[in-house]
Amino acid sequence: MAGILDYDTVNLDDEKTALKIIDQTLLPTRTVILELTDIKDIWDAIYLLKVRGAPAIGVAAAIGMYVVSSRYDTDDNDEFLKRFVKDKEYLNSSRPTAVNLSWALNRMERVLKENKDLELPELKKVLREESLAILNEDMDMCRRIGENALTLLKKGDGLLTHCNAGQLATSKYGTATSAMYLGHERGYGFKIYCDETRPLLQGARLTSYELSSAGMDVTVLCDNMSGALMREGRINAVLVGCDRVAANGDVANKIGTSVVATVAKRYGVPFYVCAPSSTIDPNVKSGRDIVIEQRPDNEVTEMWYKERMAPENVKVYNPAFDITDNELITAIITERGILRAPYNFSNL
Amino acid sequence: MAGILDYDTVNLDDEKTALKIIDQTLLPTRTVILELTDIKDIWDAIYLLKVRGAPAIGVAAAIGMYVVSSRYDTDDNDEFLKRFVKDKEYLNSSRPTAVNLSWALNRMERVLKENKDLELPELKKVLREESLAILNEDMDMCRRIGENALTLLKKGDGLLTHCNAGQLATSKYGTATSAMYLGHERGYGFKIYCDETRPLLQGARLTSYELSSAGMDVTVLCDNMSGALMREGRINAVLVGCDRVAANGDVANKIGTSVVATVAKRYGVPFYVCAPSSTIDPNVKSGRDIVIEQRPDNEVTEMWYKERMAPENVKVYNPAFDITDNELITAIITERGILRAPYNFSNL
Repeated sequence: MAGILDYDTVNLDDEKTALKIIDQTLLPTRTVILELTDIKDIWDAIYLLKVRGAPAIGVAAAIGMYVVSSRYDTDDNDEFLKRFVKDKEYLNSSRPTAVNLSWALNRMERVLKENKDLELPELKKVLREESLAILNEDMDMCRRIGENALTLLKKGDGLLTHCNAGQLATSKYGTATSAMYLGHERGYGFKIYCDETRPLLQGARLTSYELSSAGMDVTVLCDNMSGALMREGRINAVLVGCDRVAANGDVANKIGTSVVATVAKRYGVPFYVCAPSSTIDPNVKSGRDIVIEQRPDNEVTEMWYKERMAPENVKVYNPAFDITDNELITAIITERGILRAPYNFSNL
Repeated sequence: MAGILDYDTVNLDDEKTALKIIDQTLLPTRTVILELTDIKDIWDAIYLLKVRGAPAIGVAAAIGMYVVSSRYDTDDNDEFLKRFVKDKEYLNSSRPTAVNLSWALNRMERVLKENKDLELPELKKVLREESLAILNEDMDMCRRIGENALTLLKKGDGLLTHCNAGQLATSKYGTATSAMYLGHERGYGFKIYCDETRPLLQGARLTSYELSSAGMDVTVLCDNMSGALMREGRINAVLVGCDRVAANGDVANKIGTSVVATVAKRYGVPFYVCAPSSTIDPNVKSGRDIVIEQRPDNEVTEMWYKERMAPENVKVYNPAFDITDNELITAIITERGILRAPYNFSNL
């Protein structure tokens, strides 16, 4: 498809029966595609963030279990199942907090157990189909979010995004970026602006990379420049992804999201959250109930730099996420439709 | 004075007749004091930002002209004047857009011409006095801003600042930091938060350095974290410096200032601009009339880093300043008093 990167974040190489990923730790300076067949290599790839983004990790784990188990040198179903469960548990330890990882691995294990009496070649086919179903469902979800978001945009729009809720975090299209890809393919001529997204620079390193590689008009800015940009009238909409949506529509997303939302409100720019419906958590009443992870100091003071950029004796404030209050959000865009306040997620 | 750095941003070493500065390009990892007596070295120090901040540059140039001219090996007043004017023009070329630089150099030249018939040893004394007067007036101005600002703060306050409007940009105290130094000396127990201030990192590198060196409780954060911080209720006031104040109270300051102001307004946190009255420009009606300088791309994509952090083919938005609308500003604090909207600067 035109407008989409011609390589995949994560996919199956059927000829080689290998998990194919783009090594995200080397972006944006080097584009290296890895073909992985060994369980240890796949564990490392997830642990070392060579593949990242909750949906992409889930897909990588599912395909990974297929390619690894298809090499088991056994004719015995019990032995096959035993080895599968062991490898699955091992892979699940690579990033224990990523919900999609255990969800995808459990789904692969379940389908294996449901079909455990099939001949092994047949059983391997079932595992292949299930891993590709997880991949295709993720692509389909992203594409639907993009189609819904695109109805809110018009040709020539200036679009701002924060962090990477892009193709590199999913199987294809991304969430916040999905409408950008679909619009680009259809000649919308968007002008895309990417917050660099300190401290980990996902916007500069990943989002600007994938969108410019697809041929879009991309500009990178520091996170503190969105006010100047919106004051100049250059932004028509902000699109961001999200990590969790509370029952009242408060959203937890990458640190800085609430600042962009506050600035957008001031300048009358619509602020859209692109959220797979799986991220809506009705058990969480509001943003106040979401605990925010604090990350290590050195991400702010040392990472990426030639030398330390703050004195040794200062403290560092480094939350990974912030809460965007529902009143700052124009709409929440899911694969099932566009939702506006007051939110009633029970219809989804 | 306790609480203030025990070295100077810029000063005269009378024993050696040398200009003393702290080399700001090496901060925060190395503290190196330079003693300069040669016109070329002083030119380099200003050009290479070893000394920076408009007030500090003016003082460095004034003291610099004294220490350089005191070494002229001539007994002839005309020859002295001729060499002085030549060196002054040369020094003025080091940073042509810094208003304080030419202002201080012109003031030194004027006092020289007014006293050109004095014996040379007497004339050199006059130049020494004038350079120290410029230094002392700057310190006095900063201290008065701090005393005024301190009346708006209370013990234990959490204070956020952006960029470096600190002692390192002036002769002493700074502008936005002045109340922090005075309050620290008087046991206010402030908790200071410094935005790192992308792309040049003046907050992380300079402000956090000078305030922590003076013994304050300092925390550094990325510019996109102020929303999370204020939402937690940890900030009682924001204090920033400024580059220019328009007649309607709109303020031009370091990029990102307007974002902090917008976030502060949302969370009900007072936002104070510390402004020497010399920065008020009644000829500029509003922020719309202030032209914003765009800086080079590589400050965002490459500077400080081990390798480039954005693809080669993306554009970069890198304005040096932004405009903070007067309605976002709680008060403008000058050395002559605290001003609030509607602004009438003609009384100053």
